Amino acid sequence: MDSFDAQVPQLGEALPLVATDPRWLVIALADLDAVHADHLHCERKAAQSALSLIRSYPDRADLVTAMARLAHDETRHVVQVAQLMSRRNVAASFDHGDDYAAALRALIRPREPDRLLDRLLVFAVIEGRSAERLELLAGALADPKSRELYASLATAEVRHRDIFLSLARDASPGTWRARAAELADLEAGIMQNRTVVARIH
Amino acid sequence: MDSFDAQVPQLGEALPLVATDPRWLVIALADLDAVHADHLHCERKAAQSALSLIRSYPDRADLVTAMARLAHDETRHVVQVAQLMSRRNVAASFDHGDDYAAALRALIRPREPDRLLDRLLVFAVIEGRSAERLELLAGALADPKSRELYASLATAEVRHRDIFLSLARDASPGTWRARAAELADLEAGIMQNRTVVARIH
Repeated sequence: MDSFDAQVPQLGEALPLVATDPRWLVIALADLDAVHADHLHCERKAAQSALSLIRSYPDRADLVTAMARLAHDETRHVVQVAQLMSRRNVAASFDHGDDYAAALRALIRPREPDRLLDRLLVFAVIEGRSAERLELLAGALADPKSRELYASLATAEVRHRDIFLSLARDASPGTWRARAAELADLEAGIMQNRTVVARIH
Repeated sequence: MDSFDAQVPQLGEALPLVATDPRWLVIALADLDAVHADHLHCERKAAQSALSLIRSYPDRADLVTAMARLAHDETRHVVQVAQLMSRRNVAASFDHGDDYAAALRALIRPREPDRLLDRLLVFAVIEGRSAERLELLAGALADPKSRELYASLATAEVRHRDIFLSLARDASPGTWRARAAELADLEAGIMQNRTVVARIH
């Protein structure tokens, strides 16, 4: 992470997300099993999203390698969350879907090159929001092993956010920053209209 | 791999696949870039298939962990194939689809518990066939680095085939072996009716 950040200082400043509603942490801590069950699917879907970008843009060698590596990370996270759940004697449950991600995906413009830029930035937003919430959990969990796991996952999500931002910058050097700010604003609106639930988003 | 194989000796015997048409290797070696381009997508789709099983069967803890680990392997393979292509100065191309995998997927029975068994066995067949062909390539490639890579990938695919067979056995102890033999026969028919092309399948 250090070497990556050194290359792209303050990349995350391009994507200022509003702070999570303080009620979220209380609700999440009250039903941690539900949060973990949702989190497992979040990590799975993050891997799938990265792979879907490889399918769409196989001719972009940098993107292919970055996304394969990111999916490699996320699949390890699936194993880690599954192991945490197994320690807690809780089976994973079916994915309830994610209306937060769906609302963000609806903002992706359909025509290239806007489409690539928006897909990268929407994934950056999701990683950024996940990082914030995983860090909130890491700071509040009672179990030291869970706390350590969540802190490491939060760090990974920050790195992933910056990978997406870096790819967005390379794909659309002239427009990525303005669109990132715009999507951060739109995400604030989506967050405001959501019911606070015991899930990652 | 050794410890896994030690637990399940001769698991692969349950899935005897016919030998590949000898013309395939000649055709593949004559257009290696096309084979690599197809191979990249095969590894990507293998990761996606494993993740799709997690989505469908999140309550099966053993399957979730095994599939997340398998997808973790496959995403590393995507990086390795992308690096090989980059050394050869070839960009990946769009996925041409895979009528071989589609023909196999059409054999998956729609109702549970048949559906889970068939999905696991179809993925075992695809891994087994990939392993055979990657090993053929490994034995014939001129470049030592490519040969080494393909040999290691072939070994990984054998291990993956056995993971699917082992999950199939656990899911349907009484019927998995007969169904595996049946699908191996059906795959032989699919192979016989296919044009031999410079792709993995």
